[in-house]
Amino acid sequence: MSKKNKKISAGILVIGNEILSGRTIDKNIYFLALWLNNNLGVKVSEVRIVPDVESKIVKNVLSLSKSNDYVLTTGGIGPTHDDITSKSISKAFKKKYTYHKEAYSILKKYYGEKNFNDPRKKMAKMPEGARLVFNPSSAAPGFVIKNVICLPGVPSILKSMSGNLKKYLKPGLKTYSLTVSVETIESNIAKGLEKIQKKYRKFVEIGSYPFFRLGKIGISIVIRSSNKISLQSCHKAIIKMLRNKKVKIYRGT
Amino acid sequence: MSKKNKKISAGILVIGNEILSGRTIDKNIYFLALWLNNNLGVKVSEVRIVPDVESKIVKNVLSLSKSNDYVLTTGGIGPTHDDITSKSISKAFKKKYTYHKEAYSILKKYYGEKNFNDPRKKMAKMPEGARLVFNPSSAAPGFVIKNVICLPGVPSILKSMSGNLKKYLKPGLKTYSLTVSVETIESNIAKGLEKIQKKYRKFVEIGSYPFFRLGKIGISIVIRSSNKISLQSCHKAIIKMLRNKKVKIYRGT
Repeated sequence: MSKKNKKISAGILVIGNEILSGRTIDKNIYFLALWLNNNLGVKVSEVRIVPDVESKIVKNVLSLSKSNDYVLTTGGIGPTHDDITSKSISKAFKKKYTYHKEAYSILKKYYGEKNFNDPRKKMAKMPEGARLVFNPSSAAPGFVIKNVICLPGVPSILKSMSGNLKKYLKPGLKTYSLTVSVETIESNIAKGLEKIQKKYRKFVEIGSYPFFRLGKIGISIVIRSSNKISLQSCHKAIIKMLRNKKVKIYRGT
Repeated sequence: MSKKNKKISAGILVIGNEILSGRTIDKNIYFLALWLNNNLGVKVSEVRIVPDVESKIVKNVLSLSKSNDYVLTTGGIGPTHDDITSKSISKAFKKKYTYHKEAYSILKKYYGEKNFNDPRKKMAKMPEGARLVFNPSSAAPGFVIKNVICLPGVPSILKSMSGNLKKYLKPGLKTYSLTVSVETIESNIAKGLEKIQKKYRKFVEIGSYPFFRLGKIGISIVIRSSNKISLQSCHKAIIKMLRNKKVKIYRGT
């Protein structure tokens, strides 16, 4: 098996009181999950949202770092007192929390020597030995230490950095998916789907999601696999089951 | 201190492959965080999103149940094979996974005896000793076992159940918040805010969130406290600091 053919997993750690209090709607989980999966074949295995509290960041980053190939953190790398991600990650990995030479020089150039005050300088502080993720929007870089990648919380800035992030992630096995939308209720096809899921349990993941659209109730059956042949075969089995049940199939995607 | 004056915390456990794959945008975290906080003074301390995998549900529900007053789970209580929340929670608490008499009778009445098939009956199976959270939208109830409350994943149904959920949650200390939006950049006020945060660290939580609105860059300073007097005093200190810095203040909320 080549390196490209391995399953690669990522955990996401969202850091920020504002998400837990309901002040802010997180937009990064959805973006990262889709981007990692579609662009790199990296599967998000777990997400955690924690407050701006050092002990919680330390504990959760270590736990996710152990159980995943990568951890992506969002939030807490700005200039203010509540931005404690870099310091906490340094502590988690017992690294010195210190100025990164290149980050310092990027920020100094961006702000100009006169306006390069202490809070701005703070954004150049990170765990010793970190590598930078360049930021084309607002200069302040993210960084990579061990298998942890620290990104900002502002969605537009995070998105703009994804191109520069790519090189730090080994691509994994791409997951393919097919969706069949049907006009029925879950309980009507539950047994049939269960039977098919049992048959394909090793290679295909079948999800069933009710929707309400244009006043109609329906189900989207989503099948996902890294094996195209299994996916096609499972898809056929589902279509056959639906026809036997005389269930109306909307256009599949 | 009366019961009403205690800090009450909740963990949220979102269960569903569709969130981790990026197929579906979660809408329940935001709703629950805001609802728990504003209606009940219950503070969300942590959120986890896990796949439809029994071992992961068991591990995470037990961990969140230990460290919080309540755990709210969303998703996985429907009729299909991938709905394994009730069974997993039974396993976590070593309870028999069995029919709940009242849930069974509610569902039987709702669907009619003829249409009450096995997948629908499955929705009446839950940990022995569970209490029901009634569902005014689609009959299938949620349930409470120990300090864990299991709710559906479809946002509109979850929302409709919040009224019936209230009685299972002890209200906590309400958190008050004030927001001051200013036309400046974070680094300009970071030191001032840090000083104020240090002074008020016991009672007030200060957050600083950049925004981009109408082409202008600004900061929303959000202060939160369960003590109104501390909140007002901290608010005054922030306004004073901003005036000293000659920072333009938009209307606060």
